Amino acid sequence: MLSSMKVTKTFIPTLREVPADAVIVSHRLMFRSGMLRKLANGLFAYLPLGLRAFRKVETIIREEMDATGSLEIKPTVVVPAELWKESGRWEAMGEAMLRVKNRLGADFVVSPTAEEAVTSLVRDELSSYRQLPLSIYQINTKYRDEIRPRYGVMRGREFVMKDAYSYHTDEASLDETYKAMGRAYRRIFQRCGLSVIPVRADSGAMGGSDSEEFMVESEIGDNTLILCKDCAYAANVEKAGCKPDFTAPSSLEASMPALEKIDTPQVKTIDELCAFLKTDAKRFIKTLIYRAINVELDLSAAPGGSQLAKRKPAPEAPEVYPEAFFAVAIRGDLEVNEIKLAALLKASEVALAADSDVVRLTNAPVGFAGPVGLSGIPIIVDETVTAMNDGVTGALAQDLHYAHVVYGRDFQSWMVADVRTVKAGDRCALCGGELYEKKGNELGHIFKLGYKYTRSMNVSYLDENGKSHLPLMGTYGIGLDRTLASVIEEHHDDDGIIWPLTIAPYHVIIIPIKYEGAVQALADELAAALEKTGVEVLLDDRNERPGVKFKDADLIGIPYRVVVGDKNLALEVPKVEVKRRGEKESHLVEAAKAAEELRGLVQGELEEMASQ
Amino acid sequence: MLSSMKVTKTFIPTLREVPADAVIVSHRLMFRSGMLRKLANGLFAYLPLGLRAFRKVETIIREEMDATGSLEIKPTVVVPAELWKESGRWEAMGEAMLRVKNRLGADFVVSPTAEEAVTSLVRDELSSYRQLPLSIYQINTKYRDEIRPRYGVMRGREFVMKDAYSYHTDEASLDETYKAMGRAYRRIFQRCGLSVIPVRADSGAMGGSDSEEFMVESEIGDNTLILCKDCAYAANVEKAGCKPDFTAPSSLEASMPALEKIDTPQVKTIDELCAFLKTDAKRFIKTLIYRAINVELDLSAAPGGSQLAKRKPAPEAPEVYPEAFFAVAIRGDLEVNEIKLAALLKASEVALAADSDVVRLTNAPVGFAGPVGLSGIPIIVDETVTAMNDGVTGALAQDLHYAHVVYGRDFQSWMVADVRTVKAGDRCALCGGELYEKKGNELGHIFKLGYKYTRSMNVSYLDENGKSHLPLMGTYGIGLDRTLASVIEEHHDDDGIIWPLTIAPYHVIIIPIKYEGAVQALADELAAALEKTGVEVLLDDRNERPGVKFKDADLIGIPYRVVVGDKNLALEVPKVEVKRRGEKESHLVEAAKAAEELRGLVQGELEEMASQ
Repeated sequence: MLSSMKVTKTFIPTLREVPADAVIVSHRLMFRSGMLRKLANGLFAYLPLGLRAFRKVETIIREEMDATGSLEIKPTVVVPAELWKESGRWEAMGEAMLRVKNRLGADFVVSPTAEEAVTSLVRDELSSYRQLPLSIYQINTKYRDEIRPRYGVMRGREFVMKDAYSYHTDEASLDETYKAMGRAYRRIFQRCGLSVIPVRADSGAMGGSDSEEFMVESEIGDNTLILCKDCAYAANVEKAGCKPDFTAPSSLEASMPALEKIDTPQVKTIDELCAFLKTDAKRFIKTLIYRAINVELDLSAAPGGSQLAKRKPAPEAPEVYPEAFFAVAIRGDLEVNEIKLAALLKASEVALAADSDVVRLTNAPVGFAGPVGLSGIPIIVDETVTAMNDGVTGALAQDLHYAHVVYGRDFQSWMVADVRTVKAGDRCALCGGELYEKKGNELGHIFKLGYKYTRSMNVSYLDENGKSHLPLMGTYGIGLDRTLASVIEEHHDDDGIIWPLTIAPYHVIIIPIKYEGAVQALADELAAALEKTGVEVLLDDRNERPGVKFKDADLIGIPYRVVVGDKNLALEVPKVEVKRRGEKESHLVEAAKAAEELRGLVQGELEEMASQ
Repeated sequence: MLSSMKVTKTFIPTLREVPADAVIVSHRLMFRSGMLRKLANGLFAYLPLGLRAFRKVETIIREEMDATGSLEIKPTVVVPAELWKESGRWEAMGEAMLRVKNRLGADFVVSPTAEEAVTSLVRDELSSYRQLPLSIYQINTKYRDEIRPRYGVMRGREFVMKDAYSYHTDEASLDETYKAMGRAYRRIFQRCGLSVIPVRADSGAMGGSDSEEFMVESEIGDNTLILCKDCAYAANVEKAGCKPDFTAPSSLEASMPALEKIDTPQVKTIDELCAFLKTDAKRFIKTLIYRAINVELDLSAAPGGSQLAKRKPAPEAPEVYPEAFFAVAIRGDLEVNEIKLAALLKASEVALAADSDVVRLTNAPVGFAGPVGLSGIPIIVDETVTAMNDGVTGALAQDLHYAHVVYGRDFQSWMVADVRTVKAGDRCALCGGELYEKKGNELGHIFKLGYKYTRSMNVSYLDENGKSHLPLMGTYGIGLDRTLASVIEEHHDDDGIIWPLTIAPYHVIIIPIKYEGAVQALADELAAALEKTGVEVLLDDRNERPGVKFKDADLIGIPYRVVVGDKNLALEVPKVEVKRRGEKESHLVEAAKAAEELRGLVQGELEEMASQ
């Protein structure tokens, strides 16, 4: 990257208007500042100014990854489908994975991630425990065929990801690398000037155990975060837990009335039932029928489980049930968290069953499911239900409910679990504080994969005694484009971007009021002097009115602005005006000392950001 | 890139055996040295050592491109097919272009090149002549769906290309950038330590005028180069010309015998005819029927031309004849150069016509075509035929030939042109010297495109007077992977790679005989001292026999090897042994002065390569 540039020699097509489809600030400002242009829906080109900022993010990530001892490699972007078939993800990944047939009819994938590609490389080279741990990363193009790409590069189709993979002989070693990555990620985001919220996250389609997501707050975030007002607890709602808001009865009270069938004509929803019975939703046991796909959990002892078909998605992958149905009973005021439920079942997906399946499985019209008398299907009981000793629930028949239902007396569970969706107002499991919600965007993710890929792809090494083992694996990703866009989301004002110095395309912009004569000479001299000391400088040599140059400078957000004008040069001691972007006041600096002062300011700020 | 690394902390899986499918030296050595591994046929992953060398090539290219004033951008790798349909290349590119349908059924391309993508960006932003010239480049992933990928990264499917595009108001400006690119390319290859042969090249499917290819000599090269023994003439055989080896007769000699039909029973090939008539091939007028695709040349006045169908491959593209046939008459000892012929016809492709077409068009069996009496098809006469005043040619009937054929008297041409294939032994058009052939691989290509894309894609700018014009365009590519492999082809011996210092993954390798005690202390100290001065150093800290370390050091080709051993450290003045890779002799250097001496050697060599 050249460290000195004139505006007329580069290409920064700033815009006064806001692009019609740009909803969020970073999308608007990346277009208006001439950083980015659109090639097609979800496909963008970085122009010179944008690419400089992008490279700074890339360099910070590379430095921090190198510092963890991870080794950079460069696999291809297009990879053979065979690898994805081996891992079983050729089927599991769904339509978001871009699949290609080449001219010979062979299947390929435009990589959305690279667990398979990297694991296949490691498989071929790994023989001894002495080669482990091994941590490998790439910074490379990825593609996800988003059905509704939007918000500019925040949710594009093609993007650049830093993805790292580590292989280990034991849990302690995996944990060490996992923690080192967590520290590196914190430093990366801090060096980018980003406030991230590290949250414990569900693993989604990845499978595995420990994981942490690095989120930034965002109105348009894909994720709902659950945070505690009193302590540092932060979790993705997909995985969040809370303090129980119930007390399990020590035993059945002797006075408990017996189960009673009640007529509930024309009543189907919980709200209608509440009105009809003059009580509230917390008294109801809501029963939902779910269909789960590719269930890995053993169902052989579950109701109906012995009749279920099984298959192996790949030769080395564990057996799964391609389809299975479950009833979930939960307190009426709560929602079932489908991600928690999927994790519980080790299923690739769960969703409410179709009406026809509900009717078939409950032998009742939709709206009257209940756990009492329900057979042939595993019943999962949420913890909350175990504390209800006088519940109301559907009676598996039109217009009929049961009252005085008691778990354990009137029905049994196949499994008791926490499958509730935590929400604002629930209490923190750690400190009891009030939980609240935020929307967030995920910038990074670190994740212990365990044996998932090394088992399905048959990776092994020999230990000290010549015995063969599977290595453990971890995976660690950061989206570069999103990280860059998030920096703008966090650092801007009404006039434009306010770059943190570490990510700024240039550190200093010099604006000569009129680029001619003594002003031109001094501007050139100052630019040359700054360049020599490693300060990156943009010189606005355009023949434009000062107002236009000031507006553009604010828009593109270069941290230090130096205005060189006749008036200040005519002072007894010639001066230039220096202003920090984002601050109101400028100050005058002796022209002869300007380069040294700016160097000091820039270096000082860079060092401060590096040492925090 | 970290500038100091221990062998046990990185991943350099060297091999003693040669991979079975590795035919050429660079392929063998990139695998053996642990630079590269295969993911699938034609798809490779760079491992840490290979990526370091790759990045050095990338950095040299970026520096030289920046120095020309070209601006780096980053478009996507996957681009919408619409752009390729606009330019007409969606059809013209054939099967080597990897096409993808996304989940919504829309067509995309995994970019093989980016004239369309970049031109569409420029189209949207260009308004005034003041924005021109504009030169833009990217260094990015490309894909060509090679049907037979081989020779490692020399002919892979996915690769990285530096591709630049420039836009201009006039020829002089285009020429200036074209020449600056030519100079930059020479510097790039020189800095990589490569001997390139710049040759004038045909434009292939690109269309346009001036172009230059940068070739390296290679046994397995795709290209045949025609070179002069006496002067600097160098051309791709696809475009090469030569000094005429004939003299056109000033006028028909009065004594010329009249055309005569002769019986030639059972005679079909030129060889048979030579034997039958007891003469040589130079006396024959060979007549070949060609089928041409997408002919842009105006054929309205050519024989049969008025009946030909026309179409526009894209709304703004020029009209073409999707299919047209031509007869080519050439001296019997020569071959027709199909690339020259295609360029002459402005056709996307030409090939010999099918037998059935030959029979239909000549109204004669295959093997008896000739220009005399041939009608309804344009006859292209090679220059050589105009000088033949007593030729033999097919008579458009089974077992019949004409003798004493004279061009101009017995038949006419639609066009006279140079369509011969030049070969070794022909004479240089510049100096008359003897021409010879070499096989070459193309590393780079610079090319004046003219208006081809700016016209078909409707790009315009307003001049000083507000009048709209098309800009002229140039395109400039370099393949990074090929360039790197070519460095190894040129710099190696039986033991391994001998890196030029500019491309070497590390400048210095330190080999402690045994990594312990005083030897370890000195090796560490030396590595730290070198790192501080910017010298990149690899320290072989493995617990291996010295022989293994020496063999690996030779294989991976680090330019300077420093051996640290007990014996030399025990000298009155402790010493280490320094050896330049590729040289036989080592020399002893005082341990205390080793870092400074190596810094001097490394910097000296780097500066020398930069200044050549």
